[in-house]
Amino acid sequence: MKRVLIANRGEIAVRVARTCRELGLGVVAVCSEADRDSAVTRLADTTVVIGPPAARRSYLNAAAVIQAALQTGADAVHPGYGFLSEDADFVEACEANGLTFIGPPAAVMRRLGDKSTARAAMAAAGLPLLPGTLEPLADADAAARAAEAAGYPVIIKAVAGGGGRGMRVVTDPADVVGAYRETHAAAQLLFGDGRVYLERYVTGARHVEVQILADGHGGCVHLGERDCSVQRRHQKLIEETPAPGLPAELTGRIAQAAVRGARAVGYVGAGTFEFVVDGAGGFSFMEVNCRIQVEHPVTEAAAGVDLVREQILVAAGERLSIAQQDVRPRGAAIECRINAEDPARGFLPTPGLLTEFTAPGGPFVRVDTHAHPGYRIPAMYDSLLAKVIVWGPDRPQAIARMRTALDEFRATGAGIHTTAGYLSAILDDPCFRDGRHTTQWLPDAG
Amino acid sequence: MKRVLIANRGEIAVRVARTCRELGLGVVAVCSEADRDSAVTRLADTTVVIGPPAARRSYLNAAAVIQAALQTGADAVHPGYGFLSEDADFVEACEANGLTFIGPPAAVMRRLGDKSTARAAMAAAGLPLLPGTLEPLADADAAARAAEAAGYPVIIKAVAGGGGRGMRVVTDPADVVGAYRETHAAAQLLFGDGRVYLERYVTGARHVEVQILADGHGGCVHLGERDCSVQRRHQKLIEETPAPGLPAELTGRIAQAAVRGARAVGYVGAGTFEFVVDGAGGFSFMEVNCRIQVEHPVTEAAAGVDLVREQILVAAGERLSIAQQDVRPRGAAIECRINAEDPARGFLPTPGLLTEFTAPGGPFVRVDTHAHPGYRIPAMYDSLLAKVIVWGPDRPQAIARMRTALDEFRATGAGIHTTAGYLSAILDDPCFRDGRHTTQWLPDAG
Repeated sequence: MKRVLIANRGEIAVRVARTCRELGLGVVAVCSEADRDSAVTRLADTTVVIGPPAARRSYLNAAAVIQAALQTGADAVHPGYGFLSEDADFVEACEANGLTFIGPPAAVMRRLGDKSTARAAMAAAGLPLLPGTLEPLADADAAARAAEAAGYPVIIKAVAGGGGRGMRVVTDPADVVGAYRETHAAAQLLFGDGRVYLERYVTGARHVEVQILADGHGGCVHLGERDCSVQRRHQKLIEETPAPGLPAELTGRIAQAAVRGARAVGYVGAGTFEFVVDGAGGFSFMEVNCRIQVEHPVTEAAAGVDLVREQILVAAGERLSIAQQDVRPRGAAIECRINAEDPARGFLPTPGLLTEFTAPGGPFVRVDTHAHPGYRIPAMYDSLLAKVIVWGPDRPQAIARMRTALDEFRATGAGIHTTAGYLSAILDDPCFRDGRHTTQWLPDAG
Repeated sequence: MKRVLIANRGEIAVRVARTCRELGLGVVAVCSEADRDSAVTRLADTTVVIGPPAARRSYLNAAAVIQAALQTGADAVHPGYGFLSEDADFVEACEANGLTFIGPPAAVMRRLGDKSTARAAMAAAGLPLLPGTLEPLADADAAARAAEAAGYPVIIKAVAGGGGRGMRVVTDPADVVGAYRETHAAAQLLFGDGRVYLERYVTGARHVEVQILADGHGGCVHLGERDCSVQRRHQKLIEETPAPGLPAELTGRIAQAAVRGARAVGYVGAGTFEFVVDGAGGFSFMEVNCRIQVEHPVTEAAAGVDLVREQILVAAGERLSIAQQDVRPRGAAIECRINAEDPARGFLPTPGLLTEFTAPGGPFVRVDTHAHPGYRIPAMYDSLLAKVIVWGPDRPQAIARMRTALDEFRATGAGIHTTAGYLSAILDDPCFRDGRHTTQWLPDAG
């Protein structure tokens, strides 16, 4: 591997480019016409403009991405997260063109990307699942029967979905037929695949996920858990490790389950096993994300491991640089996702020109961002502006550090708002401070 | 302790302010008329302009600093490094005005600040010293006799000195009388105290120092060593931990010697014991710095300890938060000091207006700086613009990360140059990569 094309934008493109450079790899950036001034272009040896602003004509245009790789002499593709990162067809297209895809094999991705086959595989590997359907629901009547069997409330999800989109919670049996039809239609629209399934919806639950690294030589380790229970409309806002208040015995068992699941499907690369933990300490498998995740830096901060480096080396055929006994997470790490949105107007995205941009710094503070003074935040992509990650010897010190870091964060420009103040208010809330929050804590509205 | 006045400027003022805020302490910044737009003013609750640009009329004006503390209700003073940080009279003046000085007691500082009494104290504590004089040299003849006894080459240093200023190496006995007179006069000029002493000068040596933390309850720990052998004209440019190529058994013995020395003088606070390590693995005590040091972040990165936090808590009467067995440094950390100087013109300082300023970021990269776009680098202070600190699981990965970080660093403005490229060249040099460099490696000239 000599030269990596980064098939993404925003902060993750910058983050991947840094590790490529540290490894001595050439970097090819791609961007849409709206992203010419993004910071990744400064880190790249070459930048290829692959299409107009609309993502489906640029970042989701597999042919344009592969064309850019071939014309620039790239021999590998890092997909980041979102966009083409979990598209098994894209993985195969890379391979067909002699490009190394930095991620799991297409067959593994396909099996885990289909939530129905993923659930079946994990059930076979002995992982606990929530009551629900292993097969996609045939029709609305099947949905009603399945919901009755699983027990209300239930959640209906797209088989081809993920990332919290297109889901619907049903509490009242009278709503199940309508909810089935809605999610079915939404799944068709969002994912091009209308199949849906359902499982019991756990209230008072925590979202706990496990970071996995596996190589092609039988090496497979976990790097501890992340708690991502601070969510708004199923979107993660704040992530941390270790999971506050959960006994190490429980998180250890969850991590072991993730390793068992990864081994069962022959996983290779970096992946995340997501679980729901109920108030009684029971845990159930939800889904696998076959890519690097937005919140991966908290694991890096605590474990002292560069996850993207491991991804790249594993894709190049090497063994993992670490064995399980070398993984010794230290202290507590927290990430805040700062979006260019206005909390006072229903979190409406606020694109525009950044006239001032100051990221926090100092001890145990990391900022991943593509923004800089003079950067124009485009309107057509997700509104993630920067991730602030802090580490501390314990959770209270990490929280105090994050509060100071958020106070230092400045992103100003006509019409631009950020969620930094909103996140500060969450950090100040006794419910969060005590670790009593669940995924249902924040109101979905407003 | 409720409110801390930071009696300093530049990056260290910012760094101290961050920890004060994390601890929930109020922050009073002071600045000269030349520093009104420095970043610390954004972090402070109050800023007091204490005098004109000349340091002796502002940052070195103890009365003005104390006055600012009293008028703003500060109850403690953090001195940073340089300026008043090792001035025992200032410590006493703080105490006389009811202000807690965040640093060692005046008596300890006075004893260690005088290199003659410091050497005597450490000799009594059993620390190895280089052959030389314990008493100040009475005159040029005494210098010649002492040099003969110690063995050439020798170095003549100011008793009241430190920080590598006003020293002179003598290789040829014919030069010793002239060198004595020069350093004597220089010491009078620089430190207001003409007394000098001499010791044998070790060629092919490494500068290794040990970070100490001690509280007022008998707690005293070391946090490992730092190697600061990359020097130009006795000024440190790059610092790292652990010391490359030195056996852990040796650095462990040096660290133990430092703890023994600290306990012998009743040290309280953060301090650094500096040693010279010769090519044969022998080590000798040089001096103690009674303050936080510029290079403290490499220790923080490896050990996972906020040294300024410990300084403040110890000054407030608390015990250290860590015991020796809790100190488990991880991986390798490196710091580069980026100065606003032009290497092509003899490292001439280049003050001016920063029109662009971009600090590197991402995993395991820390930047401490007071600069920002629109900041005017003043001409009358030291030229340190930013410190870049990186961590990696091993030294080669840390070096690769630093190279990438330095490439990302941008500070532009009419007439402004930085040493970032010069530091990159050092990092690329096989001598540095192999850890074969000594304090004499870089040419003093050009």
